[in-house]
Amino acid sequence: MLVVMKKGATQREIEHVVERVQELGLTAIPLPGEERTAIGTFGVAAQDHADSVEALPGVERVVLVSRPFKLSSREVQPHDTAVRVGGVRVGGGQDVAVMAGPCSVESPEQTFATARAVRDAGAVILRGGAYKPSTSPYHFRGLGERGLEILAEAKRQSGLPIVTEVLAPGDVERVATVADCLQIGARNMQNFALLDAVGETQTPVLLKRGLAATIEELLLAADYILARGNRNVLLCERGIRTFERYTRNTFDINAIPLLKRLTHLPVVADPSHGTGKWYLVAPIALAAVAAGADALLIEVHPSPDHALKDGFQSLTFENFGSLMRAIPAVAAAVGRSLRVPVS
Amino acid sequence: MLVVMKKGATQREIEHVVERVQELGLTAIPLPGEERTAIGTFGVAAQDHADSVEALPGVERVVLVSRPFKLSSREVQPHDTAVRVGGVRVGGGQDVAVMAGPCSVESPEQTFATARAVRDAGAVILRGGAYKPSTSPYHFRGLGERGLEILAEAKRQSGLPIVTEVLAPGDVERVATVADCLQIGARNMQNFALLDAVGETQTPVLLKRGLAATIEELLLAADYILARGNRNVLLCERGIRTFERYTRNTFDINAIPLLKRLTHLPVVADPSHGTGKWYLVAPIALAAVAAGADALLIEVHPSPDHALKDGFQSLTFENFGSLMRAIPAVAAAVGRSLRVPVS
Amino acid sequence: MLVVMKKGATQREIEHVVERVQELGLTAIPLPGEERTAIGTFGVAAQDHADSVEALPGVERVVLVSRPFKLSSREVQPHDTAVRVGGVRVGGGQDVAVMAGPCSVESPEQTFATARAVRDAGAVILRGGAYKPSTSPYHFRGLGERGLEILAEAKRQSGLPIVTEVLAPGDVERVATVADCLQIGARNMQNFALLDAVGETQTPVLLKRGLAATIEELLLAADYILARGNRNVLLCERGIRTFERYTRNTFDINAIPLLKRLTHLPVVADPSHGTGKWYLVAPIALAAVAAGADALLIEVHPSPDHALKDGFQSLTFENFGSLMRAIPAVAAAVGRSLRVPVS
Amino acid sequence: MLVVMKKGATQREIEHVVERVQELGLTAIPLPGEERTAIGTFGVAAQDHADSVEALPGVERVVLVSRPFKLSSREVQPHDTAVRVGGVRVGGGQDVAVMAGPCSVESPEQTFATARAVRDAGAVILRGGAYKPSTSPYHFRGLGERGLEILAEAKRQSGLPIVTEVLAPGDVERVATVADCLQIGARNMQNFALLDAVGETQTPVLLKRGLAATIEELLLAADYILARGNRNVLLCERGIRTFERYTRNTFDINAIPLLKRLTHLPVVADPSHGTGKWYLVAPIALAAVAAGADALLIEVHPSPDHALKDGFQSLTFENFGSLMRAIPAVAAAVGRSLRVPVS
Repeated sequence: MLVVMKKGATQREIEHVVERVQELGLTAIPLPGEERTAIGTFGVAAQDHADSVEALPGVERVVLVSRPFKLSSREVQPHDTAVRVGGVRVGGGQDVAVMAGPCSVESPEQTFATARAVRDAGAVILRGGAYKPSTSPYHFRGLGERGLEILAEAKRQSGLPIVTEVLAPGDVERVATVADCLQIGARNMQNFALLDAVGETQTPVLLKRGLAATIEELLLAADYILARGNRNVLLCERGIRTFERYTRNTFDINAIPLLKRLTHLPVVADPSHGTGKWYLVAPIALAAVAAGADALLIEVHPSPDHALKDGFQSLTFENFGSLMRAIPAVAAAVGRSLRVPVS
Repeated sequence: MLVVMKKGATQREIEHVVERVQELGLTAIPLPGEERTAIGTFGVAAQDHADSVEALPGVERVVLVSRPFKLSSREVQPHDTAVRVGGVRVGGGQDVAVMAGPCSVESPEQTFATARAVRDAGAVILRGGAYKPSTSPYHFRGLGERGLEILAEAKRQSGLPIVTEVLAPGDVERVATVADCLQIGARNMQNFALLDAVGETQTPVLLKRGLAATIEELLLAADYILARGNRNVLLCERGIRTFERYTRNTFDINAIPLLKRLTHLPVVADPSHGTGKWYLVAPIALAAVAAGADALLIEVHPSPDHALKDGFQSLTFENFGSLMRAIPAVAAAVGRSLRVPVS
Repeated sequence: MLVVMKKGATQREIEHVVERVQELGLTAIPLPGEERTAIGTFGVAAQDHADSVEALPGVERVVLVSRPFKLSSREVQPHDTAVRVGGVRVGGGQDVAVMAGPCSVESPEQTFATARAVRDAGAVILRGGAYKPSTSPYHFRGLGERGLEILAEAKRQSGLPIVTEVLAPGDVERVATVADCLQIGARNMQNFALLDAVGETQTPVLLKRGLAATIEELLLAADYILARGNRNVLLCERGIRTFERYTRNTFDINAIPLLKRLTHLPVVADPSHGTGKWYLVAPIALAAVAAGADALLIEVHPSPDHALKDGFQSLTFENFGSLMRAIPAVAAAVGRSLRVPVS
Repeated sequence: MLVVMKKGATQREIEHVVERVQELGLTAIPLPGEERTAIGTFGVAAQDHADSVEALPGVERVVLVSRPFKLSSREVQPHDTAVRVGGVRVGGGQDVAVMAGPCSVESPEQTFATARAVRDAGAVILRGGAYKPSTSPYHFRGLGERGLEILAEAKRQSGLPIVTEVLAPGDVERVATVADCLQIGARNMQNFALLDAVGETQTPVLLKRGLAATIEELLLAADYILARGNRNVLLCERGIRTFERYTRNTFDINAIPLLKRLTHLPVVADPSHGTGKWYLVAPIALAAVAAGADALLIEVHPSPDHALKDGFQSLTFENFGSLMRAIPAVAAAVGRSLRVPVS
């Protein structure tokens, strides 16, 4: 922590800061400068400490020197973490895993058909929502428990492990009976009670970045889960809110290589939400692979026109097949490969 | 809903859209234009309908004509709603209620002293957090149940009703035993499970706008609570995230008169979070009163330097007193008054 | 400047940073800490220095300690600057000056009628655009030279000094023959060639904040003008771009008291662009007065329905009259007054 | 244009809107609905029309149906435009052209060495700034005319055509004597006087997207240049401002395929500004190629540590060489190739 004093701060104000820093259990060293004094502190300072010192008289501002995230940091763990979703390893290697399926589970037929189609095209994990968040209370919110049953049957039929969203701490146990991976949606990235709850399990967690969250906030949210003892966390870039109106979100491609540098956790790209337009999904998926993503999360629907939710960003079986055929060459160009199903 | 076709959309594509619209239970009327065809639809269309039609071939884009929020809308209920927090009415009149207290309950002494101080200065409701959200898992997260006990005692001593935050659906019942008003924090504005849970009670709810939420999304979140049967909802503008770095958030003053126009619910201004700097709190509080706010929510702490959370945006007792003395003249200048305690 | 080294930075890397800092003419002091080393530097560091050091091996990040703006800073000049626009003082006192008029000069009749109306209602400066920026090349871009002639005549008739926009360095001289104050629009806040050009004159400059500009960037843009020798700069908050769609911009009310604290220059509020909705202009104008603005800039049109530009945010004569009658009480409530015309 | 009336709008208000629409030269057709009336209009409506109608009594909002950009639109010209920069074609084919060089021209040695290095590595156009925008007036702003002389010599030595920035309308002629392509920087994207000025020449223009600009605004800015008769416009995605602080800007990868769909103009990606971190440049450059970019713009410096500007985002010769060797495989994976120099 570095405390920058105002020009003309008094000696008394400087001493008061030094005292307060010592109360916080840190060492303080005043550094007189040409224009103003700064005070360096040693010991592990937290944002709360910084905030409390910033309120003192004579203080211009306080700068935190350490990154606030810990357990997710590569400084703490230098080697890539591999997370096992069902039998499928994600991260920790040079291959790219594809998770695909419908936004929402709507019916057994739609789910089973999609499961078959994405498996046959090469996807290794099935996605599908039984509990769905919705901006409006008047819209479809998922089939709930009936949706879980359909997913369980789809898993049995297809052999694909399941990733599905959980919305409330009280639902974690029930959802985890079916899910091989629990999804925390973007709107819940800072739902700390929910992070605590999934942190108490050992089920892998796919944590989506919030709509206006910074990467630091995403890693701090991951730290919530890791700190409870669940080390199986996947981070998902799914687009952020910007001023652009032709797309639903802006996929933050920078986040892919930046996360690979900052953290040991696997990085998943969701170009479906990241663009919100089906015709942008394939080029952004390939871009994410070129940038180093460990996995892709893709929405696929037998008839996007008739989807109850997010049809405008879902691929048809045919378009998904084309994308899957395009991935290996791009992956190979950056020294990676498409993760193939174990048979 | 208006469906705008692409230039050069075929007759077949237009007919396909008309059919799909009719499947959705709406009436479709093609409107051929000079440059392209549009298709007007009648009946109540939802965002889901719009999204599903937007995915059809030949469609350029779809525009929703109705506002999506309903129960919170002034079109549904033209007269101001008054919400009773303990014995205190908020909204539904020309007076401005002040809610004040510490960000977090830290100790009995700090809480009782603050309660006395804010009551003596004219506040009519006590705020204070027992369960606190925190961006980092390594920071103070509130005293929890012990904090609730302290609040209960502060209420007994001061006679002030209590507003305090609830973080999880499973905590609603317990928190509501002490709280006269349940606060939903900004990061939980779209925690739909929590909105459902507080909607099942009759306890008033202070709903804070999310960091990157639009006003439409805030009103839809309010509709979640209203739709479950709880009509006692207060809306709170607490600043949004912008690119500005000298302030913690940007207080959206436009939201105050805009919400008064769009909705019948009371509008509360939180200049403490809305600025994040104690020296900006008083001018922004007065600005909010001038713009028509029904209530203010202010952080006050006996010793902001030593606050465990958010001290840099808390007022001292003295500064809070000055603010309270400044409010009546500004309120009177716009035809309002400061709500005074019933004695 | 504080240079934070990575955990595990080598001694050689630390020495390399020290050498590079010394090449930049600064003194460097290594500060070994528990987790990592930091290097404090003394002497006046610029952003360019920081950027260049940040690229060195072993450097985690670099923090600038001084604020980058100088001439506009209250640290450089503690007392409020008063700027004279024609005969009218703006800033440097407790009164609030109102500048009003049409967005665009459309015709002599429209301009003269508006000048008379706003003067009779108490405005002390006439605004009106002859050269107008427009997002689209297919829209109205102002009457140009003919507009300047109309403004000159409006000034003669009404006695009000004129503020009008200049778009290009080559136009500054011509516009300044009529203008008592040159407006730099939001889209030109970082048009450095234009800032240089108006800095070469002594005509007052109304500098509008850019749509996505920070306050620091606004003050640096002011420094461009001040550094060329023109000390007559007015700063204008006119709303920033946010995600909110019900308003055209979000008026940053925080900027008013914050600018009053950071700079000695007068602060002008533009609630017309700051909201983009005529029905929000009056409450936000009053809020800006309550927050401490030195002046208001208001769009007024004889028939907003028929305005060639921005009619939806212009006040009618009647609505402007109501606003002017509401200002004195709000101003008085915060120890200020409405600036009245000298007669 | 679709005009949505308020619930309960009177017959008189509806008729007033119809009259006003007809005054604007458009045809109006009222469309009574269940909840409210809408009014469809036919003929070419502009944003100005929409704004003027939105101010009428009883109007809820107005929706523009046509896209506002014209000359840059694929609807106007379906086939890809190829722009010739010196002898080098950009766009209009399946190959990817690389433009590279220093952010700023600092000295003959630095410029000539970089020109040689980037040419030898396969770049086909040399970038370098003689006139540099800078947020602060106290920083380096380029060598100006001396910089142009150095660029002219670098061009003679290397044989590479030159792209360099122009900051003011009065400089266009002089800069165009050396430049094969005039760069309009992000801060000048809506400097309409400058757009007009470069539109009057036939020199190709590289138009950078503004920091907070939408894609629609970028295309309207292109229309300014095209409308003056200069059809040689290149569009450049260079990152937008977001809340993320670990990167300087957020590269909007979605913009690449979206622009390819909306416009016939060539699309250039600038991963140097788009990330602001040298270690992110290569992965984002490859991602942009995978997403369909026609060209890359890359900052290269012989000694990034000693760069006067933007060293932290510049590649060394060695890193640039590695990137160039990685491009062909990624380009081939998406059916494209690296544009090779004509020898």
